[in-house]
Amino acid sequence: MNREELLVLKDEAENHLVNELLPFWMSRMTDEVNGGFVTHFDRNGKDTGEDEKSLIAQTRSVYTLASAHRAGYGGGLLAGMAGHGVDYLIGRMWDDEQGGFYWMTDRSGNVRNDMKIIYGHSFAIYSLSEYTLATGDPRGAEYAGKVFDLIQKYCADTMYGGYWEMFHRDWTLCGPGSRGGDRKTLDVHMHLMEAFTTLYECTGKEVHRRKLMEIIDNLLNRFLHPLYKTGIPQFFKDWTPAPQIKFDIIWGWDRFTGQGQKANTTDNTSFGHNTEFAWLLLHALDILKISPENYRDIFKTIFEHTIRNGIDREFGGVFVEGPNSGGVSDMEKEFWQQAEVLIGMLDAFLLLKDPDYLSAYKNVHRFVFDKMINRGVGEWYPLMTREGEPIWTHMSHSWKINYHTVRSMIQSIERLNRVLAEF
Amino acid sequence: MNREELLVLKDEAENHLVNELLPFWMSRMTDEVNGGFVTHFDRNGKDTGEDEKSLIAQTRSVYTLASAHRAGYGGGLLAGMAGHGVDYLIGRMWDDEQGGFYWMTDRSGNVRNDMKIIYGHSFAIYSLSEYTLATGDPRGAEYAGKVFDLIQKYCADTMYGGYWEMFHRDWTLCGPGSRGGDRKTLDVHMHLMEAFTTLYECTGKEVHRRKLMEIIDNLLNRFLHPLYKTGIPQFFKDWTPAPQIKFDIIWGWDRFTGQGQKANTTDNTSFGHNTEFAWLLLHALDILKISPENYRDIFKTIFEHTIRNGIDREFGGVFVEGPNSGGVSDMEKEFWQQAEVLIGMLDAFLLLKDPDYLSAYKNVHRFVFDKMINRGVGEWYPLMTREGEPIWTHMSHSWKINYHTVRSMIQSIERLNRVLAEF
Repeated sequence: MNREELLVLKDEAENHLVNELLPFWMSRMTDEVNGGFVTHFDRNGKDTGEDEKSLIAQTRSVYTLASAHRAGYGGGLLAGMAGHGVDYLIGRMWDDEQGGFYWMTDRSGNVRNDMKIIYGHSFAIYSLSEYTLATGDPRGAEYAGKVFDLIQKYCADTMYGGYWEMFHRDWTLCGPGSRGGDRKTLDVHMHLMEAFTTLYECTGKEVHRRKLMEIIDNLLNRFLHPLYKTGIPQFFKDWTPAPQIKFDIIWGWDRFTGQGQKANTTDNTSFGHNTEFAWLLLHALDILKISPENYRDIFKTIFEHTIRNGIDREFGGVFVEGPNSGGVSDMEKEFWQQAEVLIGMLDAFLLLKDPDYLSAYKNVHRFVFDKMINRGVGEWYPLMTREGEPIWTHMSHSWKINYHTVRSMIQSIERLNRVLAEF
Repeated sequence: MNREELLVLKDEAENHLVNELLPFWMSRMTDEVNGGFVTHFDRNGKDTGEDEKSLIAQTRSVYTLASAHRAGYGGGLLAGMAGHGVDYLIGRMWDDEQGGFYWMTDRSGNVRNDMKIIYGHSFAIYSLSEYTLATGDPRGAEYAGKVFDLIQKYCADTMYGGYWEMFHRDWTLCGPGSRGGDRKTLDVHMHLMEAFTTLYECTGKEVHRRKLMEIIDNLLNRFLHPLYKTGIPQFFKDWTPAPQIKFDIIWGWDRFTGQGQKANTTDNTSFGHNTEFAWLLLHALDILKISPENYRDIFKTIFEHTIRNGIDREFGGVFVEGPNSGGVSDMEKEFWQQAEVLIGMLDAFLLLKDPDYLSAYKNVHRFVFDKMINRGVGEWYPLMTREGEPIWTHMSHSWKINYHTVRSMIQSIERLNRVLAEF
C-alpha cells in the first residue's frame, strides 16, 4: 500500500467518525427527562421505545463520549454529555446499600434486575476511569476504585486465581451451569484487563498495576490455547476448559442455537476476540511501560491466526469464529469483530512491520465502509451474511451500542497517523 | 485409660488455667498508663521493661481474654480487659490513613514499625471476631471486617491463588527473598483459616464462608505433602516448594541458625503445626456445618504421623520437627507445639476413637505439667531440651504470649468433658 491509499482510508475514517457516528449519537442519545442515555434505535435511527437501560449500554456510552473528548473530538460538548451519563450511573444504577451497579433499570431509573454482573462492572471501571482521565472530574476514579475494591473482595477466586463472574445483589455467588457461578470466561477476564489498564493509567496505584499484571499472566497462561494462542471462551474454576454455554443473564446477542450450547462447544475461537485481546494487551503493556518485544512471539501467532483464518479474501471482512487449529466454522460477519480487527491489524503492522497486515486492514476497512455502515443513518449493521447483506438491522439496543464503532475509528485514526509517519 | 485417670488430667488442667495461667496474666498484663498490654516478663514473671508492643502480642492477648470470657472463666472481669486491649488496637495501632494495623509500637504507642504484615492481621481478625462473639461489642466485628476487606484487596494473588504476606505501610508488596514478598507460607495461610473461621462464626456472611472454603481447599491441596499430608512451610507464588528461609520481619523466635536457612530446608515438617492445622480444620468444618467424615482419611494420616514420629516415648512431649516421610530431626521441646498437640490428640480420639490418641494426650500432658510449667510463676517455659531442662526461660515477650497456653487449657478441658461423656 502506498501513502495515498493510506490517506484515503484515514480520511474515510475521520469523515465517518466526525460526520456520521458522533452526530448519530450526539443528536439522539441524551435522555433529558430521565437522565442517562437512550440506547434503542432501529434501522432508521428511530427510538424503538424499549423500556430498559442496561449497565453495559450506559457505561459504554460514557466511555465513548469520554474517550472521544480525550481524543479531541466533539468541540468540548462530549465532556458534559459523559458527565450526564455518570450522573445517571451514580444516581440511579449504584446500589448504596450493597455496593456495585445494578444490571438493568427501566428508562425512568427503576431497578429491573438487581444482580451484580462482573462483565458490566468491568465496563464501569473502564468508562469511569476514562471519564476522569478525559475531564478531571474525580467522581469517575472514585467509583471505579470502589468497583475495583468490590471485585477484589467478592469475586477473586483465592484458590485457583481469576475471578468469579455472576452474583446476586448482595454479592453472594450464583449457582452453577446457566446461572454462571461456576464459570470463568475469556470475555470477562479480557475486559477486566482492559478496565484495569485504564484504571491504572488514571490512578497510578501499585495495587491496580499489580492486579493488571496478574490478570495478564492469567490470560496468557490459561485462556490462550497453549499451541495456537487463540482464546478459549469458558473454563471451570480449576481451568479445565468448559463447554461454551449460554448464560441466563446474557451480555450480548450471542449467536447460540435454541439449545443454548454451540455445536462444537469446546473448539471455538473468535477472530474478533483474539485480535481485540492482542491490541488491548499491547495497550496495557504500553501503559505499564513494558516492552511488547517480551511477548513478540505470542502477538505474531495471534495476528497470523487471524489473517490466515479470519479474513474473508472473497467478500471481505472478518468471519465470526473457527476451530483453534485453523479454518472457519461461522462465516457471517459481526460488527464488533470488524471494529476490533481494524485496530488490531494496524497494531500488528506497527509491531511486526509485515505489509500483509496493512492489506488485511484495508480488506476489513472496505467491507465496513462499503457494506456495514448504514449510509444516511450513520451506525453499523450488527450482523450480516458472509456476502454483506444485513441479517439484524437495529442500530442499537442494550447490547449493541457505540463503544466498538466509535473506539474503532478513534483508535484506527491514531494508528493510521503512526503508520503514515513511517511511509 | 479409665475415667478416673481422665478426671485427674482434667482437674489438673482446670486448676492450672484458673489458679495459675489466668492469674499470671490478669495480675500483670494491663498497662494502665499507656493502654494495651505489657507482654514482656522474665522467668520470675517480672516485667523486663522491653519497650515494645507487637501486633501479635496485643491481638493474641485480646483473643485470650475474650475466649476465656466466652468459655465462662474470669468471673466477668475478662470482657473489660479484652475491651481495654481493643481500645489500644483501634486507638494506637490502627493506621487511619492507609488502613490496617502497624506491626510494632513502643509501650507509649509510638509507631516503631509501620509495615503491614499479614501474619499479624490474621490474629487481628481472629481476636476481634472472638471479642465480638464474647462481649457483643460491635467494634470487634467492624474492624475484623475491615481487615478482611484489606486482605482481599491487597493480598490475594489473583493469578495463582493464596495470599501475599509482606507489605509496606501503603500496602505495596515487599521485595523477594528475606523481605518475603515472593513467598507463601503454611503459617500465614493456616492462621488465616483460623481467623476466617471465627470471622464467619461471628458474621455469618457468605463472602466470609466462601473465602474460608477456598483457603481450606488451598491448604489441603497445596500446603500438605501429597502423600504424607504433613505441612510444607514455604512456597513460591506458583506453589513450587521454596527453601525455608528466615524473613527480615520475624513473627516468632524461630530456631534458625546464623545463616537464616535451616540445614534441611526442603524437607522439614512441624509436628505442632500439623496437629494444630488438623484441629483448626476440624473446628472450621464444625462452624461450616460440614461433616469431618469427608476428610477422615486426611485427619487419620496427619494424626498418625504425629503420634508415630512426633511423640517422645522416652522423655515425654512433642519433638520440634522431622522429615515428611517420618523420623525426627530436632528433638527439643517448644511450648506451643505441646499446647497444640494436647488439643489435637483429644480431637483425634473423638474423631477416630483410637485409644492411642488418649495415651499420646496423657504423654504430652504429663510432660507439660511435670516439666514445662514454671511452677510458682504460672506460665510455660518456651523451649526445653529433649529431657525437659529449660533452654529459654522468659515467660513472655513480643512473640510468646498467652494464646497457645490458655487456649490449650480451655480447649482441652472442653474436649476432656466430651471424652468423659463417652466413658
